[in-house]
Amino acid sequence: MRTLLLAASAALALALPASAQEEPKGAPAPSEIVAAAPKSDWVAIPAEDLLVMTLAPDAEGKAREVVIQLMPAPFSQGWVHNIRLFARAKWYDGISVNRVQDNYVTQWGDPNYDNPEATGKAKPLPEGLKVMGEAEYVLQLVQDQQLVERMGAIIRFGDRDLIGIEKATGIYGLDRDVYGESAGMRDGWPVAMTTPDSPNDTYKLWPTHCYGMVGVGRNYSPDTGSGAELYTVIGHAPRHLDRNIALVGRVIEGMQHLSSLPRGSGALGFYTAEESAKRTAILTVRVASDLPAAEQPAFEYLSTESTTFATYAEAIANRRDPFFIVPAGGADICNIRVPVRRVVP
Amino acid sequence: MRTLLLAASAALALALPASAQEEPKGAPAPSEIVAAAPKSDWVAIPAEDLLVMTLAPDAEGKAREVVIQLMPAPFSQGWVHNIRLFARAKWYDGISVNRVQDNYVTQWGDPNYDNPEATGKAKPLPEGLKVMGEAEYVLQLVQDQQLVERMGAIIRFGDRDLIGIEKATGIYGLDRDVYGESAGMRDGWPVAMTTPDSPNDTYKLWPTHCYGMVGVGRNYSPDTGSGAELYTVIGHAPRHLDRNIALVGRVIEGMQHLSSLPRGSGALGFYTAEESAKRTAILTVRVASDLPAAEQPAFEYLSTESTTFATYAEAIANRRDPFFIVPAGGADICNIRVPVRRVVP
Repeated sequence: MRTLLLAASAALALALPASAQEEPKGAPAPSEIVAAAPKSDWVAIPAEDLLVMTLAPDAEGKAREVVIQLMPAPFSQGWVHNIRLFARAKWYDGISVNRVQDNYVTQWGDPNYDNPEATGKAKPLPEGLKVMGEAEYVLQLVQDQQLVERMGAIIRFGDRDLIGIEKATGIYGLDRDVYGESAGMRDGWPVAMTTPDSPNDTYKLWPTHCYGMVGVGRNYSPDTGSGAELYTVIGHAPRHLDRNIALVGRVIEGMQHLSSLPRGSGALGFYTAEESAKRTAILTVRVASDLPAAEQPAFEYLSTESTTFATYAEAIANRRDPFFIVPAGGADICNIRVPVRRVVP
Repeated sequence: MRTLLLAASAALALALPASAQEEPKGAPAPSEIVAAAPKSDWVAIPAEDLLVMTLAPDAEGKAREVVIQLMPAPFSQGWVHNIRLFARAKWYDGISVNRVQDNYVTQWGDPNYDNPEATGKAKPLPEGLKVMGEAEYVLQLVQDQQLVERMGAIIRFGDRDLIGIEKATGIYGLDRDVYGESAGMRDGWPVAMTTPDSPNDTYKLWPTHCYGMVGVGRNYSPDTGSGAELYTVIGHAPRHLDRNIALVGRVIEGMQHLSSLPRGSGALGFYTAEESAKRTAILTVRVASDLPAAEQPAFEYLSTESTTFATYAEAIANRRDPFFIVPAGGADICNIRVPVRRVVP
């Protein structure tokens, strides 16, 4: 990987001797650390946890496919159940992207849900949906079930203690967090947490609204959404939504098909009636395990408990590859993106 | 303003009595607080600080205009000088957007800079450009020039002290920060800082790479870029670039014209030779004060030292408007966006 904001090799040639055009030596970039990870550091994602969403082809006729990784237990499993149910009922087939709000979310669902001119045309929901309570937004772990062994290998980010396996909660801790008390990785997912104030209190853990995360649209409390209406984050992490909406997964391939769509000019970025032609049709959504074996995509993620991941995260917090002159000394949980790669099964 | 992720009025009608469809009462949303600000809380942006960038019309033939607010003193003034010079030399006219990297940056400049097949075709740079040193990425304030009076009105965000006028540095403090020690607002701009470790040390302040901020592309150190190559952030704040690249402004109107462009498939999101048709042409870039009076746009920002701003920031950190059930208790500096509005001069 070369420089991040490489201006121009031609401009460089004007200003510096030719030999300076070569990339300076330096520490490996985070991407190079990931590329060098042993196979054993990668964890296969179950096909049952992969959703394949096929959008209508783009203006040039090119296919557009988005792959979403659903969140494993213990978070949000009721909504994840519903989403598999919607997909298997083919309920999502024929819905569309109805909202694209800049620096916020792209949202898809039944276009007739929010359309006052289409009363009675909304798709009936499938049977068997779970109704989830708001308590399910946050995982509570009772303090005395966890006990001790809280320290794993500690890696220093600048002058702070940052990485360690937090065995009490399963969090692979990264950094202090403005939205929780701390944030880290748990089984491959970004998580924030608060620690108990008293022995009767609990650890509280919740997944974080980072770029590309997928959540469940809902109406006012106490509604928690069924999974019929989904969104993904296309801007700076709207962490104020944490603990207020269910997160159910993340886009692991094809994100650009959702992030580069035209923004809606209606309230909250919904497409107006005049813009209905901008709604991107969703042709099909399938659970990968339901596809014929030859069509099943396969992905794996870099274990967040691996040494490679710790090295990668530390390198993100302290960039020493050639482009950088001042390492940050820390990293936001949403800037430490869990590496995911497509593999040939 | 209605709910953030309003799923569906039709769905709601299925699940709840009709009266529940009305918006619940609650505290005002941040946008409502801003809308109620007195005129005296708004600060006019000098026309000299506004760049009007006109892109080629979109596929439907619609005009695309982007307005950038240049950063005022004391930050990055050498680069800002260069940018006005490039604009006045009409050097930017006819360049293009050459790079769109998802969740990172959209970058524009001379397409022949980075094109090995166009050697010798790069535009010659105008005369009078300043060459800036890396020290200019960070503002250093000597401790004993500032002294005392560090506390203004303190507003509590959850259980933390967060807002106060930090008179020593001019920062309107907001919150602890993963990338600096703290972050806040200074004269309408997001800034991070570290405090002195010893009496001989200095405060260090720098602007932050939030969504929509505009920076100067550069090559390897010690190059700091001239301003010929600019980018804006279109994803989660890449705060690791702070102190490593010059920030010079922010997009205050038309951001969607840069954020929704097709992503490049080359390394770092550059458009490949085969994708050259995707390069969006930049027709003109003008300093607003150079335009005929009738064509000059006018903007103002909400004073970050106003009581309204403090109330707004606190409400972002603790959302109590009807959609929310759990206030975050804090806010990332990049989620407290300084309100900017177009006005009729």
